[in-house]
Amino acid sequence: MTSSPDALRELLGDRVVSDPQVAAGFAVDASPQAEALPGDRFTVVRARSRDDVATTLRYAAQHRVPVVPQGARTATTGAAEALAGGIVLSTAAMTDLLVDPVERIAVVGPGVVNADLKLAAAEHGLAYPPDPASASMCTIGGNVATNAGGLCCVKYGVTADYVRGLEVVLPGGEVLRTGRRTAKGVAGYDLTGLFVGSEGTLGVVTEAVLRLVPLGDPALTVLAVFPTLERTVAGVAALREQRHTPSLVELLDGPSVAAVQAYGDYGYPADAAGVLLVQSDRPGHAAEDVQGYAVALTAAGATEVAVAEDRAEADLLLEGRRVLNPALDRRGDRIIEDVCVPVGRLGELVAAVHRIGQRHGIETTCAGHAGDGNLHPSLFYDRDDPASRAAAERAFDDVVRATWELGGTLTGEHGVGSLKVPWLAEELGPAEVGRQRAVKALFDPLGIMNPGRGIA
Amino acid sequence: MTSSPDALRELLGDRVVSDPQVAAGFAVDASPQAEALPGDRFTVVRARSRDDVATTLRYAAQHRVPVVPQGARTATTGAAEALAGGIVLSTAAMTDLLVDPVERIAVVGPGVVNADLKLAAAEHGLAYPPDPASASMCTIGGNVATNAGGLCCVKYGVTADYVRGLEVVLPGGEVLRTGRRTAKGVAGYDLTGLFVGSEGTLGVVTEAVLRLVPLGDPALTVLAVFPTLERTVAGVAALREQRHTPSLVELLDGPSVAAVQAYGDYGYPADAAGVLLVQSDRPGHAAEDVQGYAVALTAAGATEVAVAEDRAEADLLLEGRRVLNPALDRRGDRIIEDVCVPVGRLGELVAAVHRIGQRHGIETTCAGHAGDGNLHPSLFYDRDDPASRAAAERAFDDVVRATWELGGTLTGEHGVGSLKVPWLAEELGPAEVGRQRAVKALFDPLGIMNPGRGIA
Repeated sequence: MTSSPDALRELLGDRVVSDPQVAAGFAVDASPQAEALPGDRFTVVRARSRDDVATTLRYAAQHRVPVVPQGARTATTGAAEALAGGIVLSTAAMTDLLVDPVERIAVVGPGVVNADLKLAAAEHGLAYPPDPASASMCTIGGNVATNAGGLCCVKYGVTADYVRGLEVVLPGGEVLRTGRRTAKGVAGYDLTGLFVGSEGTLGVVTEAVLRLVPLGDPALTVLAVFPTLERTVAGVAALREQRHTPSLVELLDGPSVAAVQAYGDYGYPADAAGVLLVQSDRPGHAAEDVQGYAVALTAAGATEVAVAEDRAEADLLLEGRRVLNPALDRRGDRIIEDVCVPVGRLGELVAAVHRIGQRHGIETTCAGHAGDGNLHPSLFYDRDDPASRAAAERAFDDVVRATWELGGTLTGEHGVGSLKVPWLAEELGPAEVGRQRAVKALFDPLGIMNPGRGIA
Repeated sequence: MTSSPDALRELLGDRVVSDPQVAAGFAVDASPQAEALPGDRFTVVRARSRDDVATTLRYAAQHRVPVVPQGARTATTGAAEALAGGIVLSTAAMTDLLVDPVERIAVVGPGVVNADLKLAAAEHGLAYPPDPASASMCTIGGNVATNAGGLCCVKYGVTADYVRGLEVVLPGGEVLRTGRRTAKGVAGYDLTGLFVGSEGTLGVVTEAVLRLVPLGDPALTVLAVFPTLERTVAGVAALREQRHTPSLVELLDGPSVAAVQAYGDYGYPADAAGVLLVQSDRPGHAAEDVQGYAVALTAAGATEVAVAEDRAEADLLLEGRRVLNPALDRRGDRIIEDVCVPVGRLGELVAAVHRIGQRHGIETTCAGHAGDGNLHPSLFYDRDDPASRAAAERAFDDVVRATWELGGTLTGEHGVGSLKVPWLAEELGPAEVGRQRAVKALFDPLGIMNPGRGIA
């Protein structure tokens, strides 16, 4: 079935976008493979309230129309792209935000931007740690939908570790509350974890109760340069031995470093085989920690180590990591991986990615959250050369298989989206696929929630 | 249907208990209301492996026999009591335990005792924080089944916060793996959270992958004595303002203190209206923290404050809290509550419990995990006086209702068991009850997993 903007407008008034050119702006997410539908091929609803969401999902169920929930469209997986004839349901305008310092929770609408929540929490000496690279743009609704991680996870964990409860509207318009607002609570099955990371395939989150933690100190940074990848990985292992877990452990391989330096001078030696960026935010001990990390990294084989003495310097050292994505985008078209392996297998993963790139004659970079074993290899191709694109796709497949060999998963934090659906069934196996479909059918019996994404 | 020990013995040999007197030892959990079935009214299987569990659950599905999974039987809710004609499936002998210090995980069988896991982790400088009062006896399988909490949760959270993945055998014998072993992973719906706290009503956990964290310092303790309950609660609020979260915040009301002192001399003033026990385990700063807490508690109105200078003294101060349960058991028969409210409503909860006790003419005590808003009121009655028992039951109902009024839940960490089933439906509401039953049916379509427990 196809959504009717006129019928929806009768129900939702100006929540429905009427200008197809405006609607076109909601067509794609940040997936490099995104192909934009024209704005007249789908209907955009900009919900302002739970009732708007419920009305939309009631209409969608009645008319069997597919619904794509949408936040800030920062996904790189195609999870939030418009579907022809469907509804794009944006919750970006649902920005209610309440910080309760006594309970140390925040009650937030799905449209609250991650960085805005961090700022609001900080006013009370509290922190909301999950820290995707897109924190300044991405919304909590999207963070919950993907179980977003980011730079801080090595110490602080992922979004799921902070979601205490959710309000979700199910297809048909029914409102469901999961989890709890209290610190503990075990009355009934907790469905919260099912919705976290479900990529909009079960329902639409309209409110999240999030746990906050005491704010750490401003982080200090150590930058370590390595002559080989083996030593870079030895550096990661050395950090694992530290009693005081770093709040950030990021790895850039040689080609990533070169891409960053080609983008601007961020002070990295362009010929480094590997760079590690490591932070501590431990109250009263950040300086001591980064000095300790520097010693450990030097012992592991770093040839150059820079320790930030203050916050400004720390930010400066990290700047090269922060511009990595634009730097890689400028380098060329690419497929972005999001593989995660046991941290002890990290070196094998990086080596495998490089080997696979060479085998297929494509350029690769390997960078990411080394402390979690979660890397984002990029596989570059020439958009105008179908053979090059095909080679990158074969390389993608090989990287996923190498990851599985190492005991890992094809997605650590970005989600499956539409891009990785073909591999998901193989990772899960047939019995689990059947079970996952049964779970989906329990909440979305008509199969209208973000069909074709996130589930095999 | 009824289980046949002989038929099970053919499948499982000496895993099946043949002596009814031995079987009788598996009849009840630690619920004060437990009534023991004779050992010939049910069959006990002591599983040693996943295959034993699968064989048992295959038999149970074929013959429609109810199965009660059982760990160390420390539940106080009736969740693990034998059912007539059913199978008690003990996983207490499944004690495989592997600590992986590089990945900072433990892979454990369900029969591993919580304290044994703590010790094994500590050998690697790591900790498994969840810390129920029964830690020296209770098993990880039971901890997962109830989402156990305990004394450390104010800083470290509950069992769910440490379960990365599970292996579960479903009724019929199918083996399911949930979650992940890697630090991150979002491929498919994560069913882990559904099984944590499900009280054996969906399947039997045969392995858990648990996250470990760096070991804190040995905890130091401050004991604060208050002349009124209001000031005791003000003390809890003052601790909430501390930047460095205590690793333990336990409250004992006046009657709890009196019960402890009647049990032995633990150095508490028997006429105190309230006692707080507070700890810090922050590396390098425990002594500084407890001094700071002492200042804050004095400002909040404590009339006596004792700060432990070393670990031995710290353990001594906590000893009174540790003997609370035997002290209360000696005091008389009681119904144990497990209510949890927002921490800001804690004082109202304690006052409500006392008021309700007075109204029904029964004695009450109120103690527990004040830092989480999770208290365990005891409602005392005379076993030989049906009127007194009835009064305690009415008081139980009133306490649950008062908890709901305060935005809380009837169970913070003990679970629903059989004891609290009558209240669960009211807490969840009819729509949620329907959904929870549908979730149950997805995994246990025959309704043989711990029927009558944990679900409305």
